[in-house]
Amino acid sequence: MTPQQEQAEAFGSLRIDAARNRERILAAAREVFADGGIAAPLEQVAQRAGVGIATLYRRFPTRGDLVSAAFQDKLQALVDAAELALANGDPWEGFSTYLLTVCEMQATDRGFAALFSAEALDDPRIHDYCTRALVAFERLVDAAKTSGALRADFATNDLLLLLNANAGVGAATRDVDPEAWRRMVGYMLDGFRVAHAS
Amino acid sequence: MTPQQEQAEAFGSLRIDAARNRERILAAAREVFADGGIAAPLEQVAQRAGVGIATLYRRFPTRGDLVSAAFQDKLQALVDAAELALANGDPWEGFSTYLLTVCEMQATDRGFAALFSAEALDDPRIHDYCTRALVAFERLVDAAKTSGALRADFATNDLLLLLNANAGVGAATRDVDPEAWRRMVGYMLDGFRVAHAS
Repeated sequence: MTPQQEQAEAFGSLRIDAARNRERILAAAREVFADGGIAAPLEQVAQRAGVGIATLYRRFPTRGDLVSAAFQDKLQALVDAAELALANGDPWEGFSTYLLTVCEMQATDRGFAALFSAEALDDPRIHDYCTRALVAFERLVDAAKTSGALRADFATNDLLLLLNANAGVGAATRDVDPEAWRRMVGYMLDGFRVAHAS
Repeated sequence: MTPQQEQAEAFGSLRIDAARNRERILAAAREVFADGGIAAPLEQVAQRAGVGIATLYRRFPTRGDLVSAAFQDKLQALVDAAELALANGDPWEGFSTYLLTVCEMQATDRGFAALFSAEALDDPRIHDYCTRALVAFERLVDAAKTSGALRADFATNDLLLLLNANAGVGAATRDVDPEAWRRMVGYMLDGFRVAHAS
């Protein structure tokens, strides 16, 4: 092996290490944020990832960098689900499937709800994803109302009401009855239907 | 004042002090249990009440003594509300009013939900109150189903589902929108009605 080859191999190992470190930090961040919200101490993230705090800050200079990277897949999935729902020929089916999808995302990830907190939305990347999802959701709501399936007094904010209720059910039942949230969401969806309004 | 009168007066003051201490301990217990659940350290209760831990244990030898005394009014109100609802001529109105009452009790007292935890139900007094409330609730459910207003697949356990959802909404909105839980419960009640089942 020439000195150049040796150098290239060493550099390659460094890059693999760096990529591994990055993944370890992101996985640790998702766990720590899930437990303690996205304001949790970054020292905890570094410790769980097995890296120094300096390494963490070198890769993710701000908390927003870390949060948006940790949740990028989830945020993209949120936007995708809304756009897929809009493409559904049955507006009620699109609307209700989207709510179930979002509640499922939350039920399987305790950190998910923290993405809609004021401090998360301070980050422009998270804000951008959430805005795109919200715009699509508003179009879903309009279509479902126009079709006559969704009650006229449904408010966009009722999505947050549903997510908060879902968080409460999840917190109490996650370990003993992990599908309980589906029953609650089913009742809420029945409550949202226009034929059911009282 | 005769020595006997002086003694009687001093004894009266002692009894007033004791009654005050008892009320202070119970008020502190309600606050501490609300924040930390009913397994919270009793030292915290004593500290908040401004009494020594020995005084607390002298008045309430077991945790169950303290918990059942602290929540006795709430537990009695729970039973009373169920029995009042049973006396309502309209079974659906009785059923829905009872659910709203229980959710309101929970919304205004974060310690309330802890009463339905396994550790609380270990205490025979709390168990007795909750059993009486549950028996009345089962009769409410039967009456509302028989009247044709409540969907046949409503399960008694859906009361806990509702309370868990209510806890989630309360936790997220208590400080910013303290009546938000009513909107969620309204949707759930619409979902419970037989005409609304899907």
